[in-house]
Amino acid sequence: MAKYKAPLRDMRFVLNEVFEADKLWSTMPATQEVTPDLVDAILEEGAKVNENELFPLNRTGDEEGCQFNDGEVTTPKGFKEAFQLMAESGWMGLGGNIEFGGQGMPKMLTVLFEEMLYASNASFALYPALNSGATLCLDNHASDEMKEQLLPAMYEGRWMGTMCLTEPHSGTDLGLIRTKAEPNTDGSYNITGTKIFITGGEHDLSENIIHLVLAKLPDAPAGSRGISLFMVPKFLINEDGSLGERNPAFCGSIEHKMGIKGSATCVMNFDGAQGWMIGEPNKGLACMFTMMNYERLSIGIQGLGLGEVAYQSAMDFAQERIQSRAPGGAKYPEKAADNILVHPDVRRMALNVRAFNEAGRAFASYVGMQLDMSKFHEDADVRKKAAALVALMTPVAKSYLTDRGLDCTISAQQIYGGQGYIREWGAEQYVRDARIAQIYEGTNGIQALDLMGRKVVSNKGEYVKLFEQDIRSFIEANADNAQVQPYLAKLAAAVDTLVQVTEGVIEKAAANPEEIGAASQDYLDLFGLVTYAYMWARMVAVAAPKAAEDTSGFYSSKVKVANFFYARVLPKAAALAAQVNAGAETLMDLEEELFYGE
Amino acid sequence: MAKYKAPLRDMRFVLNEVFEADKLWSTMPATQEVTPDLVDAILEEGAKVNENELFPLNRTGDEEGCQFNDGEVTTPKGFKEAFQLMAESGWMGLGGNIEFGGQGMPKMLTVLFEEMLYASNASFALYPALNSGATLCLDNHASDEMKEQLLPAMYEGRWMGTMCLTEPHSGTDLGLIRTKAEPNTDGSYNITGTKIFITGGEHDLSENIIHLVLAKLPDAPAGSRGISLFMVPKFLINEDGSLGERNPAFCGSIEHKMGIKGSATCVMNFDGAQGWMIGEPNKGLACMFTMMNYERLSIGIQGLGLGEVAYQSAMDFAQERIQSRAPGGAKYPEKAADNILVHPDVRRMALNVRAFNEAGRAFASYVGMQLDMSKFHEDADVRKKAAALVALMTPVAKSYLTDRGLDCTISAQQIYGGQGYIREWGAEQYVRDARIAQIYEGTNGIQALDLMGRKVVSNKGEYVKLFEQDIRSFIEANADNAQVQPYLAKLAAAVDTLVQVTEGVIEKAAANPEEIGAASQDYLDLFGLVTYAYMWARMVAVAAPKAAEDTSGFYSSKVKVANFFYARVLPKAAALAAQVNAGAETLMDLEEELFYGE
Repeated sequence: MAKYKAPLRDMRFVLNEVFEADKLWSTMPATQEVTPDLVDAILEEGAKVNENELFPLNRTGDEEGCQFNDGEVTTPKGFKEAFQLMAESGWMGLGGNIEFGGQGMPKMLTVLFEEMLYASNASFALYPALNSGATLCLDNHASDEMKEQLLPAMYEGRWMGTMCLTEPHSGTDLGLIRTKAEPNTDGSYNITGTKIFITGGEHDLSENIIHLVLAKLPDAPAGSRGISLFMVPKFLINEDGSLGERNPAFCGSIEHKMGIKGSATCVMNFDGAQGWMIGEPNKGLACMFTMMNYERLSIGIQGLGLGEVAYQSAMDFAQERIQSRAPGGAKYPEKAADNILVHPDVRRMALNVRAFNEAGRAFASYVGMQLDMSKFHEDADVRKKAAALVALMTPVAKSYLTDRGLDCTISAQQIYGGQGYIREWGAEQYVRDARIAQIYEGTNGIQALDLMGRKVVSNKGEYVKLFEQDIRSFIEANADNAQVQPYLAKLAAAVDTLVQVTEGVIEKAAANPEEIGAASQDYLDLFGLVTYAYMWARMVAVAAPKAAEDTSGFYSSKVKVANFFYARVLPKAAALAAQVNAGAETLMDLEEELFYGE
Repeated sequence: MAKYKAPLRDMRFVLNEVFEADKLWSTMPATQEVTPDLVDAILEEGAKVNENELFPLNRTGDEEGCQFNDGEVTTPKGFKEAFQLMAESGWMGLGGNIEFGGQGMPKMLTVLFEEMLYASNASFALYPALNSGATLCLDNHASDEMKEQLLPAMYEGRWMGTMCLTEPHSGTDLGLIRTKAEPNTDGSYNITGTKIFITGGEHDLSENIIHLVLAKLPDAPAGSRGISLFMVPKFLINEDGSLGERNPAFCGSIEHKMGIKGSATCVMNFDGAQGWMIGEPNKGLACMFTMMNYERLSIGIQGLGLGEVAYQSAMDFAQERIQSRAPGGAKYPEKAADNILVHPDVRRMALNVRAFNEAGRAFASYVGMQLDMSKFHEDADVRKKAAALVALMTPVAKSYLTDRGLDCTISAQQIYGGQGYIREWGAEQYVRDARIAQIYEGTNGIQALDLMGRKVVSNKGEYVKLFEQDIRSFIEANADNAQVQPYLAKLAAAVDTLVQVTEGVIEKAAANPEEIGAASQDYLDLFGLVTYAYMWARMVAVAAPKAAEDTSGFYSSKVKVANFFYARVLPKAAALAAQVNAGAETLMDLEEELFYGE
């Protein structure tokens, strides 16, 4: 059946050995108190609560789903108790601002905890993930008064945040929203409209729910420049912080979905609900992007976490499953057949998952590191460079991690054979739960467009150059590390390809804006592939010198999985470059009506 | 919501224009009566019954599923009535032997009808698909007496066939089966054992169920050389053809699955059930392969049909969905936003699906054509060559069509954005229903091994040479067709790559048998890609000369989708070749215990 143990050994390797987090943290005042002992304690306690409390609720949560009854939403059995236990232990405020009761842990660490959450129970994970994003948005944009009113309770998990953007006719294109905000005389607003696909819009986990809602003022300009952000609590909040009247922000129904069935996806009807503006009028989308960017990395980690638990579960199955003989003759002649891992193609599937999971973990930590530097570093130039890399990497993290997450859950499911399709084995749930991550929080197509358009073409490749420099510096710094040279040569070639392709798209886009969207998805895939080649090279640079003296096999595994990646995954880069270079014409040529049927 | 119209225009194009089926049929006595009028009538009536009877039961069948109650299985509401209607119209015997009441239609035509079945209702389609395979097996291997006893009733759908192979510990490796067959004095056998994953093992559609069961005789040799095949009816059959006693072949439970929920997947307990041997003792696996090869093509078509209905449904959605503006400025300024097909990346997804569906339809027909020639052609050399191509192509058809089927359903789902994840829209069901096709009927990994090992390496590439000749002849024959030259140059290069890679694997496999399984999946993908390039070239060769004078846009669409395929899909061939050439070492290097967790 399903199996999950938090991959602490690999997490520590990434954090301590590959990125030497402690060195970085010791240089930044905000993170100086994050000691190795504290980090170890957090990882170990985090592993326990995820393995022991959330993971056992994953299958039952899928079977039971959320229930909707007359406006009330009940989460699956056990969710509420597990949530309260976690909230009481302070996990809801792990990355929160210390000033308002948060734990103040760096992102490099919280990404690892988030991975555990998604791996253990993706449906459950979404409730704290949305709450963390909402608190981040409030911390960045709300008034001090509002922060004091909300953040401590949200870090405690007594109140939980949501993100209310989408409307039935308005998903990707938020400029089309119709939800209205009419000013009251007391400075508050009356919010009226319908929002759909609201994760955790209603549930039974917390005393109150804090909705962050995009809406339009009466005199707002058309389109996305006329959107404001409002805080709309489920229960109004009295001056002493106690709960007052029920605000007319009601859940009209919940969706029946392919997966993440324990996550309540709500239709929310705001019927003149009282709300308070966050940030400035008509600048709401920019505020919301603070939350969205957070959620985008988080959703990327959903893909990673599900890939990890799918791998562990598949290997648990494989360890017991015997079927046919090894190609060269029986490996276990005492058994009726050999273990299925004697078969090269089963290994190919398993290694594929490993190659992406382990690179993905390093990549998520790398983005977390840039986020921390962009926020906490004392050198403004370092902050600026890190912020640029975060902007560049966010769509890659969301999209590449989730696309590979689906691939990994599918490969893991395939290893089971027929049992992979049967619900009780659990493998098929991981596929269903992973699929949403490519769709919500900005579809992966939108991420690719964000990368190609806003993050590459519009700054003429400036951010890509920063990333290129980062890789080239690493290559130079490892000029004396003989064991890593074969990888570095291939990595340099892959970077060359990426740079050439980048320049090509920038040039073509100047003449035809359609070239951006035409290149975007294949470009993102190429970008992700090169990034993972970089992650594998960084891991090998650390692991290869230690492999000979290590009896656990951990470091030699790293080298061998890296070999697999470089020999059997990286060759796709050339194909992706050719696909990008094919340009827009082959996409735009077919008349629109010829796409539709009779 | 979901939409399906059988793609008759494209089906006729493939049948009549690309492969000129009528010319072929007129040369073979068994198919001479298959006139163009008859074919048209079958396609049109087939479309009607699928669109009007089966398609409306697809979503409700998924929601309701099959019910198991004390040994009885109830199919979803409406299945029984639709089945009886179809059976009465003769659809269950469409490809059946005329001698025993079948309709005798060629495979080239029945593949198109099968596509409609799977597109309309994949769960439903499996009942007739299994029955057709079972009748084919009986027609090839049963005694005349047994054929007379069974085939007319099975062609009428009064009795339905199953295929009972898998056991809990024995899936891919059938040599491990434990089901016993003990001889009775009257020439029958008592069958005892448990079979799992039996599609249609029990249901309420027909009066009787005819199980084809693999079992071992008491003195059978170990492994796959000791397997015999038995016919085990649910109800014993009296001499006059009426039904007798209930045979102890009972359904113990049905599986709860990711998808195809309207298809009953049964645990079957044979408790001394009376059976009769088909074919010779210990040669049962070879007989069963007649059925399995049939089912493998059929399951490939499941991928194709689901890709087609997913495309049509997604375009039905896209036609109404407006979101954001075209990259170059508003295309529909009178609307609040442009139709989503103005976005290059949405087109990329849609064209990807088109490119695979249309090539897949041609490919299925091509394999059907080879099957017909191998069976009906008067020239023994032609029959032999066609049979070799069928052997070569069967694993490709099963695996490549179903892998692309999943890709296509996923791409189609992605076009919906959030709605794609919601059950009521239907897109997510196609993904779930397509996923099984990669797993059952021999996993796609097993298909790849069959291709690489048995169909390529073991005959030193002889079959591949036949296929290569077929393509080279086509290229030569079109030397004067100017419009197709750019495609032919690329096709020739792709064939060169395939030939080189083939030779490389054959050489390496001589030294190390692990090279076969190490190459197999990427080799199959490369093979499929080259085959689809061939199909697109054949379609363009017909369509390009007709495009200028065609006002419907059908032929120009063919050319434009072909351009997309050649520019944006075929480049993957080089990457796949590199992956195959990477060899076994990177797969076999990691010690088995290092795959498993702590």
